[in-house]
Parts: sequence; C-alpha cells; structure tokens
Amino acid sequence: MTIDTVFTELSSMLGDRLSRSKSDLSHHGGSETHFAPAPPDAVAWPETTDEVSRILHLCHAASVPVIPYGAGTSLEGHTSAPMGGLCIDMSRMNRVVSADPGDMIAVVQPGVTREELNHELRALGVFFPVDPGANASIGGMAATRASGTTTVRYGSMRDNVLGLTVVLADGRIIKTGSRAAKSASGYDLTALFLGSEGTLGIMTELTLRLHGVPEQISAGICAFPDMASAVGAVQQVIQMGIPMARIEFVDADTARAFNGYAGTDMPECPHLLVEFHGSPTAVAEASEAFGEIATDFGATGYEHATRTEDRNALWKIRHHAYYAVLSLRPGAKAVVTDICVPISKLAEAITETQADIAASGLMGPILGHVGDGNFHAALLIEDGNEPEKAAAKDLAARMSTRALAMGGTITGEHGIGMGKLGLMGAEHGPAWSVMGDIKTALDPKGILNPGKLVPQG
Amino acid sequence: MTIDTVFTELSSMLGDRLSRSKSDLSHHGGSETHFAPAPPDAVAWPETTDEVSRILHLCHAASVPVIPYGAGTSLEGHTSAPMGGLCIDMSRMNRVVSADPGDMIAVVQPGVTREELNHELRALGVFFPVDPGANASIGGMAATRASGTTTVRYGSMRDNVLGLTVVLADGRIIKTGSRAAKSASGYDLTALFLGSEGTLGIMTELTLRLHGVPEQISAGICAFPDMASAVGAVQQVIQMGIPMARIEFVDADTARAFNGYAGTDMPECPHLLVEFHGSPTAVAEASEAFGEIATDFGATGYEHATRTEDRNALWKIRHHAYYAVLSLRPGAKAVVTDICVPISKLAEAITETQADIAASGLMGPILGHVGDGNFHAALLIEDGNEPEKAAAKDLAARMSTRALAMGGTITGEHGIGMGKLGLMGAEHGPAWSVMGDIKTALDPKGILNPGKLVPQG
Repeated sequence: MTIDTVFTELSSMLGDRLSRSKSDLSHHGGSETHFAPAPPDAVAWPETTDEVSRILHLCHAASVPVIPYGAGTSLEGHTSAPMGGLCIDMSRMNRVVSADPGDMIAVVQPGVTREELNHELRALGVFFPVDPGANASIGGMAATRASGTTTVRYGSMRDNVLGLTVVLADGRIIKTGSRAAKSASGYDLTALFLGSEGTLGIMTELTLRLHGVPEQISAGICAFPDMASAVGAVQQVIQMGIPMARIEFVDADTARAFNGYAGTDMPECPHLLVEFHGSPTAVAEASEAFGEIATDFGATGYEHATRTEDRNALWKIRHHAYYAVLSLRPGAKAVVTDICVPISKLAEAITETQADIAASGLMGPILGHVGDGNFHAALLIEDGNEPEKAAAKDLAARMSTRALAMGGTITGEHGIGMGKLGLMGAEHGPAWSVMGDIKTALDPKGILNPGKLVPQG
Repeated sequence: MTIDTVFTELSSMLGDRLSRSKSDLSHHGGSETHFAPAPPDAVAWPETTDEVSRILHLCHAASVPVIPYGAGTSLEGHTSAPMGGLCIDMSRMNRVVSADPGDMIAVVQPGVTREELNHELRALGVFFPVDPGANASIGGMAATRASGTTTVRYGSMRDNVLGLTVVLADGRIIKTGSRAAKSASGYDLTALFLGSEGTLGIMTELTLRLHGVPEQISAGICAFPDMASAVGAVQQVIQMGIPMARIEFVDADTARAFNGYAGTDMPECPHLLVEFHGSPTAVAEASEAFGEIATDFGATGYEHATRTEDRNALWKIRHHAYYAVLSLRPGAKAVVTDICVPISKLAEAITETQADIAASGLMGPILGHVGDGNFHAALLIEDGNEPEKAAAKDLAARMSTRALAMGGTITGEHGIGMGKLGLMGAEHGPAWSVMGDIKTALDPKGILNPGKLVPQG
C-alpha cells in the first residue's frame, strides 16, 4: 500500500475531515516559537476512538508517519512533521464524556481544552487544576506531562490522570488505569503514556482526577530587593510546609516589560506572586505566615486579596507576561525554554543563567513556577536572524547542562519534542536506550511522531 | 554456562554472602500467608550496585532465574521461586545514603525498612510518609507500588519516589528521574519500575520525597451504627475536601476481635479512625468539621487527642488488627486480599463482600484505607484445610471481579505476584499483552522474577 492509497482510503472514510489543502498543512506544520515549518502531507479530523484505530491500522500497514495534534501550543516542536505523513488533529474529539463530582472524576476526550473543561465543571463545584498557562488541549497536556502554576499544590498531569484509552501504532485499542484512586495492578501504563509525546500511542479518552473548588482563594504579590531574597523566601516557605496553591517568580526585566506593556508603575525588581486555597481560616493563616517570611527576606508592599476581580488585578503581570516580554523587542520571536532543579539550587541556577544571558547580549527575562524549582527564560531574537537564533539555542542548551549538573532535569514541563532531543543522552545516559527499546516494542515500524524524544535510528 | 558454574562463580565473588543452606532457601521461599513453599536454589546478599550488576550479568548469561527479596512481607507470593534460581536478598544494602531536609529528599538503598528510615530522619524534622502497615523494605514497597494509611494525604510510592538506580536483566545499570520535583523529560521510567515487582530490573538506590513533620497531629475514633453510615461519612468528608492524613475503617468483626484480643470493651460495631496533620488551627478546624459530619451520619463517642501516647491508644485497634483478627480462630492462617473501588461504590462493594463472606461460612473481617476506596478482607482458614483455602481464594477472586465491575482495580496496594496473576487479563484486557511486550523488550530471556505479573509464555 502506498501513502496515496492510504489517503484515498482515508478520504472515503472521513470525507471532508481529511484535508490536503496548503493552508491546513501549513497551519499544522507551524510552531508558536522558532521551529522551521515542517508540514504533514495530510490532516485528518477523527471523531471517535474507532476512527483513530482504523486510521492507524491503515497508516501502520503502509508505514505512514502519524503526528497527533492538540491545540498547537507546544513549545518544543512536538507537532512538526519532519518526515511528512498524516497529522491527526484531535480537535473534533472535544467532549466532556462524563463528570462525576461524587467520585471527583471526569472522563474527557483529548481535544477539549483546559478552559472549556473548567467551564463545563464550574456548575458542579469541582475543577481540573493543571494550568500550563496556554489554553492547551487536555490530550496535549497529557502527552507532554504538563504542569504549571498550581503543580506545587495539585501536582502535574502525572498526578491527575487516572486512566487512558489509547490507540496503539497498529490500531489496537487498550485501556489503562481505572476509576479507583490508586492501584498496584501491573505496570503503570498510564504513567508510561503520559509524557510519551505521541510516540507510543494516541490517547482518545482520559479519566481525570478533579478537585473541589476551594471555599476561599487568596492571592498576593510582593516585591523583593533582589532575586536571591525572593528565592530564599521560596525555599523557606516550602520547608515550613506552608500550603500554597501557586507561587510564581517574575524577574526585574519582566516587571519592566509589564510596565511598558500595561502602563503600570510597579517596582522594577523581582516579585513573588502567591495564591492560597482552603477554608477562610486556613487561607488567612497561610497568607499571614507567607507575609512574615517574605518580610524577613526584605519583601515590601505585600498586597493580598480574596475577591476574584482583585485577585485577577494582582496576578495580571503573570497572565500577560509572555506578551509583555515580547513587547520588549517589537517584532521579536522568543526561544522559550525551561529547566527544573532541586529547590536548594534554584538561586544558583537563576544567577548563572542571568549572567549567561547578560553576556550573550540577548534579552531574556526569567519567570517560573519556583515552588517546583522550575523556571523559564524567554530569549528574544529578531525574526529570521539565524546567528541570534543559534546563540539563543546555545544559551538554552547551557541552561539544560547546568540543570543536570545540579541534579535537575532539562525540562520541568515543556517536554522534549525536537527542541531538546540532542540533550536526552546527557540527561538519561543508558536509560535513554531503554526508552528506545520500549518505543520499538510498542511501535516497531516507528510511525508514531517520528523524529522526537527517543534515540533516532 | 550451567547454573552450578554460576553458583561457583558467585561463591568466589561473595564468599559466605552466597548460601545454599536448607534453612536459608526455605526461609526465602516461604510466605507470610497461604502460598505453598517455593524455595530458590541459592540466596545472595549483595552489598553494592556493582555486585548486583555482576550477579545479573552471570545469571543472564546462564538464564538463571533471579528473585529479588526485601523484608519478605509480601502478601501475594512475590518472593516465591517457582522456577528455582537465585534469590537476591537486599537486606545488606540498607543504608540511608543521604538525607537533605533542604530539598526534602533522601537517597536510600532498597534494603532499609520504613521504620529504620524514619528513625534516621526523625532528628531532621522530616519523614517518609508511605505506611503499608508492615515494616517492609523501601525497595519492596517501591517494587509493589505500595501505599497505606497515609496515602489519602501524602500519596503512594508512585508519588514519593523521584528517581531510581536500576540494574537491568543483563547487568546494565541505569538511572531514572532526578532530584527535581518534576520533569517532562522522556518516558517516565521511574513510574514504570514502581510496581513492576522485580520483573523488569532490580532497584539498588532510590531517591525519595520527604515531608516535614507536621506541627501538630490529631487522631480520633468514633463508632457508627452500621457500615453504610460510616462509609457515607467518608464520602462526605472526601467531597468536602476536609484535609485528612489518614481515614481508616474497621468493621464490627474487627472490633469484636480486638475486644477478645486486648480485653477492651469497645462497641462491637463499625468504626472510623482519623488523623489530621498541620498547624494547630488547621488540625482543630479539620477535626471539628469531621466530628460534625460523623455525627450527622449517626456516629457516637468521637474521641480525639493530640498527645502521642493518647493518639496511639486511640489507634491501637488498627495497629493490632491483623493479630486480633487471627485470634478469632486460633491456629488459623489468613488469605489476605485487597481491592480498590471508586469512593461512590465503596458501600456497595463492602456490602456485597460481607454478604458473600457470610454465605461462605468463613470468617473474614473487613478493614481498610477507605479514603482511597481501598479495603482488605482477612479470610480465616484452618491451616492445611484445602477446601477452605479454595473457598477463600474463590471469595477473593469474586471481590476482584466485583471491583472491576464497579470501575475499580483488583488490588489497591498488595500487588499481583502469583496470587492475582489469573485476574490480570480480566482487568487489563489487551493492555496486559502490552505489559508482556515491555517485559520482553527489557528482559528477553525472562530471568527476572518469572511466574509473576506478566502473561506467561
């Protein structure tokens, strides 16, 4: 069977839900960041698990590459099609199949976005907590083992997905996990597929763990004289076990960018943003304890609020950080990268990264989920300026090397895709080849999202 | 190379740390519960990762089965050697390599027991929370993805192991995970090895997540008129998000057994035991909220205490439950089994199980970690009475089938071993063969803990 026969068969199966139009190919082969376009040969929009199974059965027979596609918010080139093939766009499988606040469980299709899901859950008094910032699809978040601002309290996708329906490379359909809160029954296939970036199978249904909407939410922000003081405060509140729902760091450059972007006049120095969830008593107690520690570390102007509109106002800098940072250099693109280190190494990792960025001459504000030891640099480059792009990628690679030397990881939440493939050997050593062995066992023809994550032929 | 050549080489490598004495073989091939003895041909006590690697290299070359052994507290025959071979007893690799309260991380060898570890951590103000009851080894707990009384608050081994050093079947040494709190870097090999029951590799070092010793601990107990009321209260407190560190159920039979065993006069009805961790304010608030809900569900006599000796007194029934239950039938052995269901199905699962046990004529008290939907039955059988043993195993199998019909799992924490191998197909369907594919990819000769967990040739 040739690739054209496959597309002909798919076309008769899917009708206008198979496209080979230039604009569809170009849209699905693009990237939010700096990756060169790498379009697929066709795009399919399946509507059921059974359709995904039939599509994979055909592609497997003809060895056609298959690239799953969610909301396209990936930062490491996960959805590029460097070997062509079929992009499977999951956006039509976007239903909340069921939501059960009694068991704190929702069953969803992968194409539903985080915001759509929480919109549907609102009336039930429950929510899905993982928040990577972008309005990503739940399937994409699962495929990259996403985390984000609330991970310090609620965990990442690893902690909030109980089970999956997965279509394997050859079209077989399996189910992993269950609706029980835990299990000791066999290999943890759910965890294996989470973070596998579409290289082991395509998720078509996810069983998610929900959480009760907190009785009260309190948010706060304060300014620090320097980065070391802010990070010192983070280390202290983590060690004290003060229950935080979010704790975010933005550096002085981000504050400056925000002032320019939003016309505000916040102090152009490092800030911490925090949020507390719980009973009014617990929230007040935690907020007060945080304020005391922050003050001990030299923080000033600790403002906090419980009303939604006031909280949103305090957190505005975080929500608009990406576009504010881009506005520092009009027309620029960003090489956005992330690393994660043990909390005791956080100040050292940020200091060395800031020095490295300064020496490069590029602009690169730093911000992140510091409660997890996870931070981002948004390295601004002129669109089309190849030397700048190379310099930014070198900086990002040095950040990863630094994270490894400190006992950390090359990515806390963005994943590997094509962007960090070259660093996998350094992080995992011979364990990387074990990942390759698992890939070969599950996808012997290598059709699933080729060119990503595992050692390449 | 023959098995005898292997043992001769191992003997010259390990000296008296290799044994073929009858008592050592018999001790390592036995079981705490009802499994028939299945001794290995030899027992080795390695002291380093490198020794484990050399042992596996030799056994791999000669296709000698290898069975890892921790503290021997498994309940499903995990350490039996049905095909003979070499038992690797990890008890001499029992060091706490490092403990770092700044990062809330400890690095330990697999042979250290839970109690030894917490004894070493005490002075640092941190602890390792996973508590399966028995004083198991940390390696054994990781291999079975153990959980227990505190999982409702702190998670299971899945949530509290950050990284591993693993020796693969052929002797290769790999490292998984890192010291960072999270990672999106590649397949989650740590999670794959957790719960793999020694069938994919032998863990020789574990990086653990620690937690701060809570400022205050409050424990409580109350009696309910019937099981449905107790479980109703559990569902309510879980839905309300009341932060509990433990919530345990014991049934009326267990209470009666305890009265006989300890000479107490507690009401012979179902009880809930709870524990709260946090600041004095938070603990008081949670305990009060629990007490109100329990009372709404008909609970009486809610006693709670914060002093260690008073808390231990309140929880005495839970700590002594196993031996109290065994004393209901002097000389009896127990078929101990566990299942885990969604919390909304818990009352139904317990009711049907109790009726099934009553109809069988066996005694089988029920108790468990109800906050997770996880409960145990200890089915008492006369030692050597094969019809009773068969009846108990049938009962246990029906519990599993019932759990699956309710969307649950055949084991919340005891694992598969040999005891539940026959139920894996029913739970996992074609996903079980995927587990088999992974096993074959990592251990093509099938030397690691054969006869357990994966589909058998």
